[in-house]
Amino acid sequence: MDKKGILLVISGFSGAGKGTVVNRLMEKYDEYALSISMTSRSPRPGEQDGVNYFFVSREKFEKTIAENGFLEYAEYCGNYYGTPKEFVNKQLEAGKNVILEIEIQGATNIKKVFPESLLIFITPPSAEELEKRLKGRGTETDEVIAKRLRRAYEESDGMDTYDYIIVNDDLETCVEDVHSTTMVARNQPLRLHGFIENMKTQLEMFK
Amino acid sequence: MDKKGILLVISGFSGAGKGTVVNRLMEKYDEYALSISMTSRSPRPGEQDGVNYFFVSREKFEKTIAENGFLEYAEYCGNYYGTPKEFVNKQLEAGKNVILEIEIQGATNIKKVFPESLLIFITPPSAEELEKRLKGRGTETDEVIAKRLRRAYEESDGMDTYDYIIVNDDLETCVEDVHSTTMVARNQPLRLHGFIENMKTQLEMFK
Repeated sequence: MDKKGILLVISGFSGAGKGTVVNRLMEKYDEYALSISMTSRSPRPGEQDGVNYFFVSREKFEKTIAENGFLEYAEYCGNYYGTPKEFVNKQLEAGKNVILEIEIQGATNIKKVFPESLLIFITPPSAEELEKRLKGRGTETDEVIAKRLRRAYEESDGMDTYDYIIVNDDLETCVEDVHSTTMVARNQPLRLHGFIENMKTQLEMFK
Repeated sequence: MDKKGILLVISGFSGAGKGTVVNRLMEKYDEYALSISMTSRSPRPGEQDGVNYFFVSREKFEKTIAENGFLEYAEYCGNYYGTPKEFVNKQLEAGKNVILEIEIQGATNIKKVFPESLLIFITPPSAEELEKRLKGRGTETDEVIAKRLRRAYEESDGMDTYDYIIVNDDLETCVEDVHSTTMVARNQPLRLHGFIENMKTQLEMFK
């Protein structure tokens, strides 16, 4: 079977706990790597180049766009943010499953340019639980919480464009579900071109 | 999540060992049931109605066709063979994953009328290994083996219409792969209509 890693695109409602799931997954298994974004904004105190982001000039970013070097990119508040293809490809070639935590619009774009990507949507078991978690954080104003829930309503429309929807009720179960989904995905024909072609070529001698 | 079982359509090259995989899967896990075919042919000595087949008259079979009661059916040598919908649906409702061992043409037909079915193709790791297994049985003439290998060549063209291709190198590994593929498939959006609709309805209150 092919040894190449899988590009794992993870989205989910704000409050679904996807950050925690990703961290735990990285802790438990060696075969995952986080995608590092490139940005044209300046590093904030404590941020490291090649760890938090690849920090580059506006010119370098635009040159990379022109060279078709991004899986996806966007501009927010005058700064560019994007996913560099080269970094992702190197990790995939090395057999790592590369995790990209991204919102729904970005995920759809990735699937278009990279059909072998695996799109996973993390959700709490119910809307009630989502509300409870957002309120339970105790760090956000009612207004922010209301905005996130409204956003969740909008995003729920796109849930079924994902390959898998995984419920985060119990963290460890969710992490195992994401892991087995990734393992199983290696056996989908779109990720087995090499194996299928080999088998066909070998069987031709019996034609 | 939905408690309904999954219709598991299993195909593979003759000699891939799919019969053994299915038997071992049934032995290890309670949640699988074999689909029982209906036929208009007479029972052979030792065959039991409701175990090996549902044995019915030609008239009854044709009535079932007219009532759209089959997932698929075909006529071989003057006898009908088919997969009755009612039996499959009852098992699925009871939460069983129903296994249907069927060749590639039948599998494609099932997927058309039953898009939530999960199509798994079992293959040996290489054509060489397939040849070795067919010869190793020691029960078939060279002519029959050549015919099976030619058939495998023809069938290899359809491998990528399956949802998953699972290599049967080591039996236990293969059985576990089929099982986790089935478990993971429960999280695909096409099998989560109920959950997705519920979530959307619940989130509407935050709109």
